[in-house]
Amino acid sequence: MVYKQQQTNQAEMKEIMQFKNYMAEPITPVNQLEKNRDDMKTQMELMIMRIQAEFCRALEKEEDEDAKFRVDRWTRKEGGGGITCVLQDGRVFEKAGVNISVVSGKLPPAAAQQMRTRGKNFDGKELPFFAAGVSAVIHPRNPMVPTIHFNYRYFEVQDKNGVQWWFGGGTDLTPYYLNEEDAVHFHLTLKHACDAHDKSYYSRFKKWCDDYFTITHRGERRGVGGIFFDDVDQPDQQSAFSFVTSCAEAVIPSYIPLVQKHKDDPYGYHERQWQLLRRGRYVEFNLIYDRGTKFGLFTPEARYESILMSLPLNAKWEYMHEPTANSPEHKLMSVLKEPRDWLQLDQTHARTS
Amino acid sequence: MVYKQQQTNQAEMKEIMQFKNYMAEPITPVNQLEKNRDDMKTQMELMIMRIQAEFCRALEKEEDEDAKFRVDRWTRKEGGGGITCVLQDGRVFEKAGVNISVVSGKLPPAAAQQMRTRGKNFDGKELPFFAAGVSAVIHPRNPMVPTIHFNYRYFEVQDKNGVQWWFGGGTDLTPYYLNEEDAVHFHLTLKHACDAHDKSYYSRFKKWCDDYFTITHRGERRGVGGIFFDDVDQPDQQSAFSFVTSCAEAVIPSYIPLVQKHKDDPYGYHERQWQLLRRGRYVEFNLIYDRGTKFGLFTPEARYESILMSLPLNAKWEYMHEPTANSPEHKLMSVLKEPRDWLQLDQTHARTS
Repeated sequence: MVYKQQQTNQAEMKEIMQFKNYMAEPITPVNQLEKNRDDMKTQMELMIMRIQAEFCRALEKEEDEDAKFRVDRWTRKEGGGGITCVLQDGRVFEKAGVNISVVSGKLPPAAAQQMRTRGKNFDGKELPFFAAGVSAVIHPRNPMVPTIHFNYRYFEVQDKNGVQWWFGGGTDLTPYYLNEEDAVHFHLTLKHACDAHDKSYYSRFKKWCDDYFTITHRGERRGVGGIFFDDVDQPDQQSAFSFVTSCAEAVIPSYIPLVQKHKDDPYGYHERQWQLLRRGRYVEFNLIYDRGTKFGLFTPEARYESILMSLPLNAKWEYMHEPTANSPEHKLMSVLKEPRDWLQLDQTHARTS
Repeated sequence: MVYKQQQTNQAEMKEIMQFKNYMAEPITPVNQLEKNRDDMKTQMELMIMRIQAEFCRALEKEEDEDAKFRVDRWTRKEGGGGITCVLQDGRVFEKAGVNISVVSGKLPPAAAQQMRTRGKNFDGKELPFFAAGVSAVIHPRNPMVPTIHFNYRYFEVQDKNGVQWWFGGGTDLTPYYLNEEDAVHFHLTLKHACDAHDKSYYSRFKKWCDDYFTITHRGERRGVGGIFFDDVDQPDQQSAFSFVTSCAEAVIPSYIPLVQKHKDDPYGYHERQWQLLRRGRYVEFNLIYDRGTKFGLFTPEARYESILMSLPLNAKWEYMHEPTANSPEHKLMSVLKEPRDWLQLDQTHARTS
């Protein structure tokens, strides 16, 4: 499905508006969406609804027949709401959460302050805002299948000088055992999505991802990275949306092949224990460093169950655990301590120049 | 052992200095300790060394014979170090960590700032400081045995106007199933320790504990509380030390009877699952809210393994878990949402007045 087409084709638009393919009814009332169909707020809401549904269906296809997503549609007093889809304790997925939220209201001062420290400049105190995003964390059962996380979001903040808008997001992979072919496939899929829009994006956002997903106190990355960006407002709104849409559409081709490839790989107690320890590290990152989690939890009346769906079903902390030298676990650690240039762009560049 | 006696009795002091009863050699060189035996820094270091050893021995007594504490003595470049004792995967204790640290150096600006926000007023930038403390978190295997945490610490910060010193600490209990008799025993033991020093302490510090150990986003307390205080510098240094010593000495009588009473209680899969979910909440508190953990992890070159020994061996997060009405799990939750006056002090007061 190409999104632009849908917009211009009224008949198709009508079909989209029937929502039959979504996980639940959109958050914004239908007549409002129809009236403002060209507004970026509408475009973003329908895009994240579609991405959520497509991804949930793709995951369910890999599961046993009776393992289905539970769907919770929720609203918040201050405005907006979300749809939280969770599949728990499946045979293939131990915990899979795919969430969309569409919220508006007055920006909490703490949130405005946090945005300011990241370079945003707002004039005024009680700032009306709009935020729409999709986010997912998939924790498979088999330790040979990596965990994936992605999040794509659109912000509008209104101050005295008008509306400021920007997109943020990213997709990143957290393997328990390193498979270099998988990492290359994953990064290459993301690079293709980026390259269609700006040749400079992939390498910039790949580095940003490595920097962001750092468990600082341990001096290690959470996984093998991907892409991450926080403030895309170039070259124009429609192009930026189109880029974010491409990234979101790249999630399935980047990840589902890895699930299919490894979901029946053999493993034992040792590999499961290592996976649980790494899931402990995942919890450390999410609760100590992740800005999205903190932003969410510190928002009054936050739906914490949706925010914390990212946490694994099971996690483990062993005092002073140290993988043995030259073990597969040790191999993973060396990549987490020293991020790799998976597509060897520098090298390729050196060769061709 | 009464501490003051040791101080005044030189022969006994010599014996203490042989360290044969400690888990490892003290952090401060022996000749320095002997030279400054009346200094509060020395008194505190020897007290926490003794408390650590006594508590580790008391826990080992409840364990199978081959389950012993691993002892790691470590030093830090900037000055001082610590002794971390961990017993992992025992039959009675799933993970038990008892740590002491004695550190000095220049206070990191972030730490000084954090102390300022809590009412401390320092004049200057690079402030020499000294901190000595003992802290422990015990996660038993049997869900009928509560988790205990305690921490007692002494701070000195030197600014242009001289040395500021204060004591902080607390002991609190986190049951998985509520046993009211246990909660009363625990609180009563702490109250006796407090009352010997100041009749106002227990009720003040009990409330402080309930307020501090709050998982704000869930609107629940971590456990059934205990005592907590952050800035005791009254009526004088020796009296304050004596109070903190009493509190630390109350840990064994407050907790070990509960271990003995419940360590062989029957339980099954259901109770274990509930315990793991509550351990997830413990992780949430420690990583999101606990000031000690954050202070530790954000300190450059922190020994994160010692800081994170407080995390349970295993934890679990289930989406939207809700205990059934009137279940034992539900009974615990109601006490976590509405802290109780365990010793019914208000009521007693009303009756006798």
